[in-house]
Amino acid sequence: MRGIQQPELSKKLYKLIKTENHQVSAYEAASRESQSVASQLSEWGETQDDAVSDISDKLGVLLAEIAEQEDLFAQHLEDSRGVLKQIRNTESSVQPTRNQKTKIQDEIQKLKYKEPTSTKLVTLEQELVRAEAQSLVAEAQLTNVTRQKFKEAYDLHTAAIIERAEKQIMLAQQARRLVNLLDDTPTVPGEERPPFENSEAAREVLNDAEAGLRNYSPSIEPIHSSAGRMGANAMPHNIEQEASQQQVLQQAEERVHGGNIVQSPQQETATHVSQPPYPMSETSATTA
Amino acid sequence: MRGIQQPELSKKLYKLIKTENHQVSAYEAASRESQSVASQLSEWGETQDDAVSDISDKLGVLLAEIAEQEDLFAQHLEDSRGVLKQIRNTESSVQPTRNQKTKIQDEIQKLKYKEPTSTKLVTLEQELVRAEAQSLVAEAQLTNVTRQKFKEAYDLHTAAIIERAEKQIMLAQQARRLVNLLDDTPTVPGEERPPFENSEAAREVLNDAEAGLRNYSPSIEPIHSSAGRMGANAMPHNIEQEASQQQVLQQAEERVHGGNIVQSPQQETATHVSQPPYPMSETSATTA
Repeated sequence: MRGIQQPELSKKLYKLIKTENHQVSAYEAASRESQSVASQLSEWGETQDDAVSDISDKLGVLLAEIAEQEDLFAQHLEDSRGVLKQIRNTESSVQPTRNQKTKIQDEIQKLKYKEPTSTKLVTLEQELVRAEAQSLVAEAQLTNVTRQKFKEAYDLHTAAIIERAEKQIMLAQQARRLVNLLDDTPTVPGEERPPFENSEAAREVLNDAEAGLRNYSPSIEPIHSSAGRMGANAMPHNIEQEASQQQVLQQAEERVHGGNIVQSPQQETATHVSQPPYPMSETSATTA
Repeated sequence: MRGIQQPELSKKLYKLIKTENHQVSAYEAASRESQSVASQLSEWGETQDDAVSDISDKLGVLLAEIAEQEDLFAQHLEDSRGVLKQIRNTESSVQPTRNQKTKIQDEIQKLKYKEPTSTKLVTLEQELVRAEAQSLVAEAQLTNVTRQKFKEAYDLHTAAIIERAEKQIMLAQQARRLVNLLDDTPTVPGEERPPFENSEAAREVLNDAEAGLRNYSPSIEPIHSSAGRMGANAMPHNIEQEASQQQVLQQAEERVHGGNIVQSPQQETATHVSQPPYPMSETSATTA
């Protein structure tokens, strides 16, 4: 979709999704740089005395794991972003439906002025009923998809924040335990430091951190959704297909003619408009 | 210090500090992009129905606050980085002391071979005692500064991780409460959604989030330091200045001559070596 002019309706979300791409990249970069810092800390430690060497090496391991969580966070943000794309795609697909309706209305107005007795007016008005019906369906699909996917996207987004935070708190607490194993009592010139005796304790810190990650489960309140009742056509499941089609057409007729129901193109129209006008699965979604 | 060759001793830490600069920049970028995403979410919300508009506007406020915490985190990382620079500066300043000692030793070796009776040998050996004394002080200062500043730097670093995480968990939990106020029950075409009645509850979520930030206090275990006993010369406070000088010189003599104490340059030397060979305050520290 890059380079192609976005429909008015999806412009704002298109922009947001694009910025989220930069956001994800920034977190990926933060993860990479943090990984480098972690390994460079271990490398520096190799040039130090036993105590500093052991502590900085293991601190490097914990910082690398903290950096890893940053990358996982970026992946989760990307998942959330993918869900927002589904709203954007629906928005994009609703735009032509609106345009089509306006176009037919304009044509009818012109023809009524230029050729008020034209038989083409009947055809156009039938087309308008179909366009109106399609528009009603499209707008309902849009609000249904928007609310469902909005909740889903920010469920993922906020859960990602909480998961990163909870894991990093645990890791940072272990890192503090580790740092506390280093004695920084100042020495006098020529004085040797006593041998490092916390090697075992430092190893235990790493084991505890590993166990902490292994046994991690997020502590989040669920986000409730009523969208489970929504069908693949982005309509409520409990609406019977046939009845729904009748209803939509009737409403479209009412909006166009103020209630004069044209019977003939009904079945065809209703079958047509019950198809979702947008790609329903993420696989067919374009990237921003 | 950019562009200037780093002394061997401080090369690894120099590299780490440089990478940390990229790390800080990445988090600043992540904060900026997240701020943009937050305001673009509010802007998109303005084009939506009352319910989606209200929720996404307030969600934008919470996401902006989460982004703000990301920037604060970057600032804290920068503080931690500043502390590591003090180790690097000490490393840099110890290098010439080592070089100086080696240089005098080389000169003495050459002269002993070429002019074994030269009176210059006495002067050189006095110089070597001073260099040895200075080196003993410098190495003690280096281990003292390294351990103290290492602990201080990773105290700040890990406390920053915990603070960001705790605040963001609180904000993300409120964000989830907010998202739960949006009803995503699917509608049928032409059906109006009932008016949004959770405006008050949404306002309350923001109030609670604000109160949560206001009343925040970090829950961290302290990192203990024994470096408080260290004086401005990076030596233990409890070492009496005069006694320390005597002791250093004696040790230097022992290392150079195997115990033959030269009395004459003692006072001058000791006064000289008790000065820290590196900048003690961060204000004079160079940036990487």
